[in-house]
Amino acid sequence: MALIVQKYGGSSVADAASIKRVAKRIVDTRRAGHDVVVAVSAMGDTTDELLDLASQVAPIPAPRELDMLLSSGERISMALLAMAIHSMGFEARSFTGSQAGMITDATHGAARIVDVTPIRLRDALDEGAIVIVAGFQGFNRDTRDITTLGRGGSDTTAVALAAALDADVCEIYSDVDGIYTADPRVVPKAQKLTRVSSEEMLELAANGAKVLYIRAVEYARRHGVLIHARSTFSSAEGTYVLNEQHERSEQFTEGGPMEEPVVAGVATDLGQAKITVVGVPDVPGKAAEIFKIVAKSGANVDMIVQNVSAAATARTDISFTLPKGDAAVALRALAGDQAEVGFESLIHDDQIGKLSVVGAGMRTHSGVSATLFEALSIAGINIEMISTSEIRISVVVRGDDLSEAARVVHTAYGLDGDSDAVVHAGSGR
Amino acid sequence: MALIVQKYGGSSVADAASIKRVAKRIVDTRRAGHDVVVAVSAMGDTTDELLDLASQVAPIPAPRELDMLLSSGERISMALLAMAIHSMGFEARSFTGSQAGMITDATHGAARIVDVTPIRLRDALDEGAIVIVAGFQGFNRDTRDITTLGRGGSDTTAVALAAALDADVCEIYSDVDGIYTADPRVVPKAQKLTRVSSEEMLELAANGAKVLYIRAVEYARRHGVLIHARSTFSSAEGTYVLNEQHERSEQFTEGGPMEEPVVAGVATDLGQAKITVVGVPDVPGKAAEIFKIVAKSGANVDMIVQNVSAAATARTDISFTLPKGDAAVALRALAGDQAEVGFESLIHDDQIGKLSVVGAGMRTHSGVSATLFEALSIAGINIEMISTSEIRISVVVRGDDLSEAARVVHTAYGLDGDSDAVVHAGSGR
Repeated sequence: MALIVQKYGGSSVADAASIKRVAKRIVDTRRAGHDVVVAVSAMGDTTDELLDLASQVAPIPAPRELDMLLSSGERISMALLAMAIHSMGFEARSFTGSQAGMITDATHGAARIVDVTPIRLRDALDEGAIVIVAGFQGFNRDTRDITTLGRGGSDTTAVALAAALDADVCEIYSDVDGIYTADPRVVPKAQKLTRVSSEEMLELAANGAKVLYIRAVEYARRHGVLIHARSTFSSAEGTYVLNEQHERSEQFTEGGPMEEPVVAGVATDLGQAKITVVGVPDVPGKAAEIFKIVAKSGANVDMIVQNVSAAATARTDISFTLPKGDAAVALRALAGDQAEVGFESLIHDDQIGKLSVVGAGMRTHSGVSATLFEALSIAGINIEMISTSEIRISVVVRGDDLSEAARVVHTAYGLDGDSDAVVHAGSGR
Repeated sequence: MALIVQKYGGSSVADAASIKRVAKRIVDTRRAGHDVVVAVSAMGDTTDELLDLASQVAPIPAPRELDMLLSSGERISMALLAMAIHSMGFEARSFTGSQAGMITDATHGAARIVDVTPIRLRDALDEGAIVIVAGFQGFNRDTRDITTLGRGGSDTTAVALAAALDADVCEIYSDVDGIYTADPRVVPKAQKLTRVSSEEMLELAANGAKVLYIRAVEYARRHGVLIHARSTFSSAEGTYVLNEQHERSEQFTEGGPMEEPVVAGVATDLGQAKITVVGVPDVPGKAAEIFKIVAKSGANVDMIVQNVSAAATARTDISFTLPKGDAAVALRALAGDQAEVGFESLIHDDQIGKLSVVGAGMRTHSGVSATLFEALSIAGINIEMISTSEIRISVVVRGDDLSEAARVVHTAYGLDGDSDAVVHAGSGR
């Protein structure tokens, strides 16, 4: 008898039929003898519809009221889910973020969880009830106002509940059946990973893998929560995201200790843009000046390269990548300070693609980057930028080349499966 | 500077445009220098849509979860309304039933208000904010669960807030601009009343007038709250519902004490059915027996008449009226005990109409009933049943005759206006 936390995204509870299917799945878990706590997102497009309504009545909605509005979405889905379970003959109780003891700071729209006090949830579990909790929302003790957690909020709710209740596993359900060695829509021969280390998962998520939100994975890593990413539409095992202690646990060491693959997966990201600051005076402190300006603009810099200076001009070019959405503010900020910095011009390129190879095995294996560069050169794909971390190598290529690059690299590392992977549609909040 | 509580029904906040219009109205009241507390219903058909969703996932939804579900409707409307006001440059804060201190018993779906502790509302008012409260919902202290008040809930919320905050007036907005001497859809010459006593209002509401809910009027009468029923779509004064202390107050006695009309209005009701128990043994206790059975069935008996016994058979007929919706259960209950009671048969008639003449002046004026009976006889309308209270005379006629009956009686009591009244559509929750 285990305590299992399950999270269902918006696409898993999009309509009455889906809610009943999810209810059945929860009941099956209960029938198997487990205690079940469920974190649920708002139905399908509810959140977008509410946001649309808000924009119709107020150009810039008051943050406190926007959270009050959006938090109603999960109230609807969780109450319906609890009813559905109830009508199957099982006791189920739904709880709002505040009833569940999801205490956050007062940052409306992007609140951080500061404490979880699931007293009412424990009581309900002790009374044999299935517990349904509104994902994405919390409560601030000082203002006594409702807050929302922002993107990936429901995943974070689930992981935070799993940590606070010391659950055996946190199952994150979506319409994708696990973590793949690459995006199956890009690399048909991508294979589902049975397990991946949380540090690898963080690098994959940070570099384009969409299945899990970084924030939830970080929370799980910090609190030792075992995540199991799986599909709402099949009962097949998905992918386990393991921390050190899990990697050593019996569940995952039967048949000898878990052997680390050199490369866990290949992540692709078309959401980045490149900005090149041309003709920067090659004197100390200029780079610092530039990135202070960019940081002040709120833009999130990812990769940076500085060309060797052309001796004649004593000037150099500095290129960096950032999310496409941040490019405009960064360009405006830089242009505004062009005189002070003394650069010649700015080049904006949003036709780039980023490919990342991630694997904890890189620490102990050499030649990993060589394989990458060789595969790309054989395919005639030009590398524009390179950056590396302890367990990741990322390269920037033309956006049009990204898919082919991913396929050849995936093959080069021996990640190809025998058959093509099954592809599903996009996932919910 | 007064404290004004306003209630807006679902039809007043049906869409973004309506919400903005209501927001402007609230802001205007604030600009006039008043403190404003608003109770708002769910948008348009939200409640019906949520009920429909519930029925799709569960044949008989769990009451606790149904309240959790339905209470989300007001969260949406109140947050949007607060945003709209905020974007007009005024501080506005929305509060759920529990945040507003609307404490109820634990009867889900039909909770009774047991206490109102509007501490957070007072704080918000002291800080100069406009307060928006979710109508229709409350909170039970023991179970710590959300409850809903049932039909007319939002009106009751508004009146309860007005009482707890000692407001100067409770304005109930709907798409009808006040209380009329009759339903303008039935009697075109009906006139809007500038004021009506709460006891008259109770009789009118109890006998078919739809503008205000009995429950809210009773609460206002018990707590001395002054109700002003008016239209969302015009700034014209509506109808004041007065208690004794108001009738004596300066606001309503300038130009001499308020003179009571003999008849305040004519109410019509097509929602009743008649059941006749035929051939009841004319022995003591039979009536008691019959109405004990009916009461046990949960049916709500209104009028009762017993014919004089036919000496030959020593049997009599007993007829009574009740809401059409209650007829089925009452008939089933009576049929089940036919042997014990010893009556001969049951007649069910749902083609009746009830006309009521209401006026506090009846206490002091005679001949009121004569006028009624004469008017109907001249029109050739047959009276099937008669019942009276201290300030009301009700008669049952054929449903097809009800409209004409209302018109001739309205004329007979000199209630006709010079011009026809403007008619609006039905009102919200």
